[in-house]
Amino acid sequence: MKPLPKPYVIRTALDTMLADLAEGDPVPAERELAVRFGVARETVRQALHELLVAGRIERRGRGTVVSRPKLTQPLGLQSYTEGALAMGRRPGRLLVTWETVEATTELAAGLDVAPGAPVMHLERILLADDQRIGLESTYLSSARFGHLHDSFDPSTSLYAAIRAGGVDFGSATERIETALASPREATLLESSTAMPMLLLNRRTVDTDGLPVEIVRALYRGDRVAFETLLT
Amino acid sequence: MKPLPKPYVIRTALDTMLADLAEGDPVPAERELAVRFGVARETVRQALHELLVAGRIERRGRGTVVSRPKLTQPLGLQSYTEGALAMGRRPGRLLVTWETVEATTELAAGLDVAPGAPVMHLERILLADDQRIGLESTYLSSARFGHLHDSFDPSTSLYAAIRAGGVDFGSATERIETALASPREATLLESSTAMPMLLLNRRTVDTDGLPVEIVRALYRGDRVAFETLLT
Repeated sequence: MKPLPKPYVIRTALDTMLADLAEGDPVPAERELAVRFGVARETVRQALHELLVAGRIERRGRGTVVSRPKLTQPLGLQSYTEGALAMGRRPGRLLVTWETVEATTELAAGLDVAPGAPVMHLERILLADDQRIGLESTYLSSARFGHLHDSFDPSTSLYAAIRAGGVDFGSATERIETALASPREATLLESSTAMPMLLLNRRTVDTDGLPVEIVRALYRGDRVAFETLLT
Repeated sequence: MKPLPKPYVIRTALDTMLADLAEGDPVPAERELAVRFGVARETVRQALHELLVAGRIERRGRGTVVSRPKLTQPLGLQSYTEGALAMGRRPGRLLVTWETVEATTELAAGLDVAPGAPVMHLERILLADDQRIGLESTYLSSARFGHLHDSFDPSTSLYAAIRAGGVDFGSATERIETALASPREATLLESSTAMPMLLLNRRTVDTDGLPVEIVRALYRGDRVAFETLLT
């Protein structure tokens, strides 16, 4: 029998230890873990870094504690609000930017407006139980949705407001990849430029096939996972 | 007018520069770019790192070149082979491990076998045009699929072999998140433990609802994106 590689041993030992701890419990220091499991501090450091990116543990103040499980978002046409509520989390949003911009070539093609036409840009931080979990930029044609400027409360669900205006969501194409946050995005997400993020690009059309929105959303990889049923 | 922030300026300048280059073209050195765009080398370094993780550029030998576009995989029940061919890429697989293991509690629950029952584990590197893009571990009940041991060529599509055995795929639940590779996984993927990866966990059942497979797949974040149509 070959001995198991050290990184595997320490990961298994840490998994067993974490299984016995509750959310918010402190995680022992690197040095203490190295002594307890008989491995080098560098090996412990690498394993703790993997657990941090995996969202199993997180820094809080000067220490490290056990995280709550990731927010699992179903891929679908429901809003973030519905997804968070289904997980028993309290959804919230912080407005960062609400402005009118001129359509770039890309936005114009996606929203079926002329290049340079006015486009409403709404940038919000997505919260779950007051934790920052994502940063979402939505682009809507001002000609079609400019009236939201007078009535929409940006701390609430945009999808609900669009539906209330008589628009039915038809379908969306969504692209999912990994990305790193820019320094600005990392600050807004209270994260770092080294933390892997999930990047979603979505284009939604209504039941008549008319464009509704273009969305670019960046989710903290340590706090969010997506789930889908394929048939 | 406020001046635009430097990281934004350099990213826009680099995007414009890359748009004029073809796949495989060399990217100018950090120092040269810093002089050309009048920003600090550290600012250029951060922007180039973002482009590396985004899969726009890649290291080749001692230099940096423009990458080919990411392989876009549709989320669905088709095999990796079909997804790669649809993108005009030549799919391939390298066998890493083919072994029989005892079902852990988790595998037993997912495959509907007794804990400790024999499970076939197939670990393969996924290739697209000979580039390593993912590492896939598939677990199948030996009682149901052990016959594949005699007939299956691991460099070909497992889904095709399962279908040829008279099993029709019904549905799959899929979880998508980000993760870092372990040192072993990073080596197999010719990547690094700092590169964000896309982690997929899938459980597939047949049209009778009987379990077919449990899959854990790690995709290089700089080479793969997922795409789906939501309705």
